[in-house]
Amino acid sequence: MERVVEPKIMNANTFDAIVPLSDSLTIGGPDLVLMAGPCSVETYEQTRQVAEAVHAAGVRVLRGGAFKPRTSPYVFQGIGEEGLDILRSVADEFGLLVVTEALGIEQLDRVAQQADIIQIGSRNMQHFPLLWAAGEIGKPVLLKRGFMATVDEWLMAAEHILSRGNDRIILCERGIRGFDPSTRNVLDVAAIAQVKQQRRFPVIGDPSHATGRRDLVLPAARAAIAAGADGLIVEVHPRPDEAFSDGEQALDLAQFRELATEVGKVGQALGRGLA
Amino acid sequence: MERVVEPKIMNANTFDAIVPLSDSLTIGGPDLVLMAGPCSVETYEQTRQVAEAVHAAGVRVLRGGAFKPRTSPYVFQGIGEEGLDILRSVADEFGLLVVTEALGIEQLDRVAQQADIIQIGSRNMQHFPLLWAAGEIGKPVLLKRGFMATVDEWLMAAEHILSRGNDRIILCERGIRGFDPSTRNVLDVAAIAQVKQQRRFPVIGDPSHATGRRDLVLPAARAAIAAGADGLIVEVHPRPDEAFSDGEQALDLAQFRELATEVGKVGQALGRGLA
Amino acid sequence: MERVVEPKIMNANTFDAIVPLSDSLTIGGPDLVLMAGPCSVETYEQTRQVAEAVHAAGVRVLRGGAFKPRTSPYVFQGIGEEGLDILRSVADEFGLLVVTEALGIEQLDRVAQQADIIQIGSRNMQHFPLLWAAGEIGKPVLLKRGFMATVDEWLMAAEHILSRGNDRIILCERGIRGFDPSTRNVLDVAAIAQVKQQRRFPVIGDPSHATGRRDLVLPAARAAIAAGADGLIVEVHPRPDEAFSDGEQALDLAQFRELATEVGKVGQALGRGLA
Amino acid sequence: MERVVEPKIMNANTFDAIVPLSDSLTIGGPDLVLMAGPCSVETYEQTRQVAEAVHAAGVRVLRGGAFKPRTSPYVFQGIGEEGLDILRSVADEFGLLVVTEALGIEQLDRVAQQADIIQIGSRNMQHFPLLWAAGEIGKPVLLKRGFMATVDEWLMAAEHILSRGNDRIILCERGIRGFDPSTRNVLDVAAIAQVKQQRRFPVIGDPSHATGRRDLVLPAARAAIAAGADGLIVEVHPRPDEAFSDGEQALDLAQFRELATEVGKVGQALGRGLA
Repeated sequence: MERVVEPKIMNANTFDAIVPLSDSLTIGGPDLVLMAGPCSVETYEQTRQVAEAVHAAGVRVLRGGAFKPRTSPYVFQGIGEEGLDILRSVADEFGLLVVTEALGIEQLDRVAQQADIIQIGSRNMQHFPLLWAAGEIGKPVLLKRGFMATVDEWLMAAEHILSRGNDRIILCERGIRGFDPSTRNVLDVAAIAQVKQQRRFPVIGDPSHATGRRDLVLPAARAAIAAGADGLIVEVHPRPDEAFSDGEQALDLAQFRELATEVGKVGQALGRGLA
Repeated sequence: MERVVEPKIMNANTFDAIVPLSDSLTIGGPDLVLMAGPCSVETYEQTRQVAEAVHAAGVRVLRGGAFKPRTSPYVFQGIGEEGLDILRSVADEFGLLVVTEALGIEQLDRVAQQADIIQIGSRNMQHFPLLWAAGEIGKPVLLKRGFMATVDEWLMAAEHILSRGNDRIILCERGIRGFDPSTRNVLDVAAIAQVKQQRRFPVIGDPSHATGRRDLVLPAARAAIAAGADGLIVEVHPRPDEAFSDGEQALDLAQFRELATEVGKVGQALGRGLA
Repeated sequence: MERVVEPKIMNANTFDAIVPLSDSLTIGGPDLVLMAGPCSVETYEQTRQVAEAVHAAGVRVLRGGAFKPRTSPYVFQGIGEEGLDILRSVADEFGLLVVTEALGIEQLDRVAQQADIIQIGSRNMQHFPLLWAAGEIGKPVLLKRGFMATVDEWLMAAEHILSRGNDRIILCERGIRGFDPSTRNVLDVAAIAQVKQQRRFPVIGDPSHATGRRDLVLPAARAAIAAGADGLIVEVHPRPDEAFSDGEQALDLAQFRELATEVGKVGQALGRGLA
Repeated sequence: MERVVEPKIMNANTFDAIVPLSDSLTIGGPDLVLMAGPCSVETYEQTRQVAEAVHAAGVRVLRGGAFKPRTSPYVFQGIGEEGLDILRSVADEFGLLVVTEALGIEQLDRVAQQADIIQIGSRNMQHFPLLWAAGEIGKPVLLKRGFMATVDEWLMAAEHILSRGNDRIILCERGIRGFDPSTRNVLDVAAIAQVKQQRRFPVIGDPSHATGRRDLVLPAARAAIAAGADGLIVEVHPRPDEAFSDGEQALDLAQFRELATEVGKVGQALGRGLA
């Protein structure tokens, strides 16, 4: 594929691809959208506690896993449909939107009933039947980059959704697989910039999966915004050490507040506020 | 190797590892140090033109290749010793320091005569005789990360220098090799944060080699600073399309001024000025 | 995960995991099983021509894509159900079994009607709903390694199938993604050996996808067998340059005959015949 | 770089690039050359014990590290010049040649005095001053592939040697860095085939470094030969668990004998004997 490199510096301040998430919230414009919540929805109380804290810190979208894709079949797989109901109920209490993953086409309608944004996970980025089905559903789709997908393959996966009629697509860079075991993945900040240059899709960063380490989430979050991301999706847990999944990369509530403040400063330096 | 993850967010504002570069300039403290210049020193006039422009934009260290490590033996290999003299002469005119690469131990004394900072290139990160010799020379060393080295291997390479008595070491993240041909390398922002967490070495970012694309240098530069880098090293050319080497990743003079401005804003958001 | 390395050389001549493919054919024992056919089923005539030639060369299983997973939505996606019928009809004529891919759970029953072995493709290795559904179907499953999956993740994907009750699983190493654009993927021969060491699943090699280059298929095929593979799956086309997909990695009929001969010799050196 | 793919299957039986190693031994022709010995030369007795066993198994070249490149400066770095003398003395006793690594140009003359073949290690594949110096020495050079180098970069590194006048170059595929921690590296068998296709250099495989695991050395060795390698270099230790370095990948004497037998069978299947 011929790659056209324009002879100028890209500046992140391009806001041509704006996707409405609700009547009052869009993504891709000047304002940054923060999404946060637990890796897995465990209980109503845990979810409510996180939602309250992140809402107070400026978050507009509650994330949380109800159905969890897990490498091993012998570990916690999420609490399923009950998790969807908890997310919806807690989000409504705080005026938040819900983003959560549909693992396959058979879950799509059920997830779409309770969620405002349908997440397609990294492992499913090239599960084409799911892309096609997501292309026919009337909800925005958050398409995570496959952890071993090129930028072109990622954009082509978005085309699979688009080709079925849904143009409300948000891309999410969540780190690619590398050779250094010191981090879970490698946050590819230039991929964020490349998506912005395309001027076709908003893109957010996921510093939690990109690093896999609580102590690296903040610098990775700032870097994603500095590269031009339109928002972030972050894992937060009231007591990360007790999390059912991915606790080592979850921030506690105070740490998330610090992240929101720091990210706000970087956004401001680029002329961007929080949505 | 046991990896200790401290249970808190890392904040880039740690300035414990400060390396003096000259009587009036240090790196690793709150102030960011910009290094810039041509990939290859081609002529006195080209070098002077770049130096004048980058000096005006806040740069304190002039970079430039005299001896160039090139994949093929049949292409331009740098102008050699004459390049060292040009660098020194131009730098003196503008009160800049000089950083340039020594390809091997046989060049080290000659390079050290004219340069203020000795660069060890990515391909030489584990050429141990060069590390040992650099450990015995009385100049700061800029140690680039091998493009396929883990963070631990990189830190260990610094130990090889340290073990011979030189503690003035600056690390440089310049991108790691990945699977996506859309960029030359992948800027590993979390590696920058990891080095800062160690509190033992200053670290800078090289957005030019990390991306290999002029249009991605600015967002990568901002991301490196946002991740906690103590400075940048950037390739600049008066007419990039005519550069003898790496022209596709060199900024022109106006583009570099924009980069310096943007990087300054991100630095300010983190409480850091330009040195 | 603790990794137990037995203090002895592995020898490929371990035949503990034997999976019946039909009344008269098993895989995982001493005899090698060759699978071959076109990347995409295009027409009855093309498929019959390939089947006739590969059958004469010792192939027992006809491969062919009816539903094709393609990176772009704007290129040939396979001829669909008609392709399944062609595969079945041609295979019956020559006494061959059929292996073909099911892209998603919605196709599984239809594919299982016509195919003897259900293929799960590399991009779907962690599409868990498909693994679970394949675990409940009464047919052998060919599980390709994700091009980004570790050996442990691959074995865990097989566990997802096993956990639902289907123990007729054949693994297929088809190359992992690397940094060198000179080949499509990197054939991981040690992964083949690792699977054999586990003594739980038969494993075959796919030299076509592993290399992506016709001129490298033969040495890669020999290497897979030498590493201990229980068979191969190879793309063949009567006129590769006219293939609808992946023509650059397809062998023509004469080339496949040479491959079968050469592979037979390597197998013989290891005490293994052709099934 | 334009890549010319010839429209035919490569067959390993191309013996156009033959390099004389001594008056009575060449590499690159039909006969396979085995090289073996300890990772590090530790004592005269250890080296002699290995040499006696591998000589009896058909080995013609004794390998052994005198100067060891080590990631950390705080571990065993080899016994140095004494190691060279031990290698020479033991090799002479059994009529073997010696291959050992020169870490830098400053060691080259000293190594060349005692060794018959100068090894350039993986980390030094692009240390150009060493390549140039090796190009001016009157001995064959064993050029290991950088674990992060593309095939083109590797061939270009050989050009750096050639360009200074030395055409006795043997390439060595020793595994490339991948994302799966289950093995130390990934043996790239297609790279071996690509080198053979070039018909310019002989190429051998290093199954010890490629896998890093004793239990995978045998299948990797067979795979390298099956892909067309002209020989192997293998680490052997009388008591691997007591080795000063890399013990986990060293074969013991009985295991090496089994490897030589198995490799001989695969070679025979391809019409190749042991030199």
